[in-house]
Amino acid sequence: MTQEQHLIMALSLAQKANRANIKGNPFVGAIVVDENDRIIGSGYHQKWGEKHAEIFAIEEALLKTSDLSSCSLYVTLEPCSHHGKTPPCTNLILKSGIKKVVVGSLDPNPAVSGMKLLQENGIDVVLIETPEAKQLNKVFFTNQQKNRPFVRLKMAATLDGKIADYAGTSKWITNPSSRAFLHETIRTNVDAIVSTAKTVLEDQATLNIRIEGSPNKELNAVIIDRTGSMLQEVNTKHPIFYNRNETKVYIVTAPDIINTINPLPANTEIIELPFNNNNEIDLEALSKALLEKELYSLLIEAGATFNSFLLAKKWVDELDYFIGSKIILDNNAKAGFNLTSNTPLQNGTPITLLASKTLENDIYLHYAIDAL
Amino acid sequence: MTQEQHLIMALSLAQKANRANIKGNPFVGAIVVDENDRIIGSGYHQKWGEKHAEIFAIEEALLKTSDLSSCSLYVTLEPCSHHGKTPPCTNLILKSGIKKVVVGSLDPNPAVSGMKLLQENGIDVVLIETPEAKQLNKVFFTNQQKNRPFVRLKMAATLDGKIADYAGTSKWITNPSSRAFLHETIRTNVDAIVSTAKTVLEDQATLNIRIEGSPNKELNAVIIDRTGSMLQEVNTKHPIFYNRNETKVYIVTAPDIINTINPLPANTEIIELPFNNNNEIDLEALSKALLEKELYSLLIEAGATFNSFLLAKKWVDELDYFIGSKIILDNNAKAGFNLTSNTPLQNGTPITLLASKTLENDIYLHYAIDAL
Repeated sequence: MTQEQHLIMALSLAQKANRANIKGNPFVGAIVVDENDRIIGSGYHQKWGEKHAEIFAIEEALLKTSDLSSCSLYVTLEPCSHHGKTPPCTNLILKSGIKKVVVGSLDPNPAVSGMKLLQENGIDVVLIETPEAKQLNKVFFTNQQKNRPFVRLKMAATLDGKIADYAGTSKWITNPSSRAFLHETIRTNVDAIVSTAKTVLEDQATLNIRIEGSPNKELNAVIIDRTGSMLQEVNTKHPIFYNRNETKVYIVTAPDIINTINPLPANTEIIELPFNNNNEIDLEALSKALLEKELYSLLIEAGATFNSFLLAKKWVDELDYFIGSKIILDNNAKAGFNLTSNTPLQNGTPITLLASKTLENDIYLHYAIDAL
Repeated sequence: MTQEQHLIMALSLAQKANRANIKGNPFVGAIVVDENDRIIGSGYHQKWGEKHAEIFAIEEALLKTSDLSSCSLYVTLEPCSHHGKTPPCTNLILKSGIKKVVVGSLDPNPAVSGMKLLQENGIDVVLIETPEAKQLNKVFFTNQQKNRPFVRLKMAATLDGKIADYAGTSKWITNPSSRAFLHETIRTNVDAIVSTAKTVLEDQATLNIRIEGSPNKELNAVIIDRTGSMLQEVNTKHPIFYNRNETKVYIVTAPDIINTINPLPANTEIIELPFNNNNEIDLEALSKALLEKELYSLLIEAGATFNSFLLAKKWVDELDYFIGSKIILDNNAKAGFNLTSNTPLQNGTPITLLASKTLENDIYLHYAIDAL
């Protein structure tokens, strides 16, 4: 087997982890291979605060033979060299006698630098970066490199780019298959939905996960609500305040907003954060607050102005764009974006098509927003 | 073989015709099958004004046996029963003694009614309409049923639906693969491109067919130009007036526009037609004029206002929609449509996704406009 094939095997182990268990940690898989190309140890990171993948793999290998000097370690992410919740993985690698380490992706945290330390200690270290390894940990890498959650933005538009008609009606632009795909494949894979009070109130939105044949599933909701309009007495029975056991509604207000619902609905929390003179939320403060709440990946489902603000501020990593089978052909219908910028064509935001999927007569386009 | 399989065989024969040779006639294929399921005659309509498919098939069968009373005829379009350029096909069918006729699609012309006549003469007639037979003759059926050319509308937009930036720049929203696809697959398969003088002048458009590695190909151009601005002396050298051997530039003006270029560029023709008080071309008159010029299928490549006008007037049958890999995020950029209609969502124009194709980072969406 080639080194690449060994890494792909380690990657498939990495994917076995449950996102909820590892929390903000990366997905990591590792295997130990002997000189006859036999896999004598394997493992993956399973739970936040517990053993790393390479430790599982090496410990298993050591049960079979005490001498790993003819073995190679394949690990999908650079091993750590610092004391976190667990001792540095480089310690055990060095102690085990392993002579070669093949790494699938660099750890963005400069404190990690395990590759350098292993090389300094005479180990043959090879880096083979694959798009798959990068893709697997896109949330973790974004959290580390940008100090903010990984952000997907969902939009459901007519072919002419409208997300509601002139009167604000948006039910339904897309078909039931598109909506099922949204719930089953997208909402299910994020830590929270982010919206604005305006959208949540207009749409009477629940923002949970509805899958036909299954009970509704909870999902954390973050509502940007500078003036605290969700906290008015009249909204106590809003569907967003459904009975929650594992999730919360986070209402993000400007400081010193008086909460008029007393007591707050259960599992609701107010986060006070600064807004600027244009009533725009301070995204750096929001990023910090949401990461502290262990919300590592977000799905934005909001209106044109908020969508445009986030995109312009480079706070969006991916677009989940659904096109319904309609042209509304009306300048007064609501466009999906709303920003006046006089941007020359060549300065438009470049996007990369990751995937497309036809859903009967609708089409779903999955884009990455390119870093400029 | 089933009846459907025989019809599919006849359809594949029909497609052998060259669109340029049959002009406004339909694609038609036919086979004669004997009682042992052997094909003893076959043919397709090859040239406008000449023999129909069923005549080829029956004549070939009659060379093998003079008695066709145990044979069936499969023909992709209802046989004609009237004198056109050729005698009625029903005459030969009846004379041949064939006892069963299977038809793949009805002829929209009520004067044809060959099925009725055959039935009245004791022939077992079966109609098995297939989407493939309908698709093959979509141009012919539209010409017959709507008394106008078959119309495709091409658009190249950013993901947010803009076809040019605030300054009017549209080069390039799509990538070279998309543009190659447009020329090789779309422009090649229509009789003319239709645009407006505004777009042709702004874009310095040639509107020919450019395929890498091949010499440029001519294509008829129809330019809607109420005031005759293409006919100003200053535009004599416009690239649309390239050297043409087989095609023409049709300048559609309001009546009594004075042509200031004297003489007209070669292969240029003025068509004078009525415009209404909103300066909109009379589409009924345009349809008639273009069918008379043997322009049976058109590709619209124009601006937002003309696109919207045609769509609203139900003068568009298909959309060829390219999405480039950019979001321009600017309200001042030019949208692909421009009409103020206050249309409720449920009254939007329904469209059916026929096909999609990724072209590197771009995506091409092919839609049919649903008849309302």
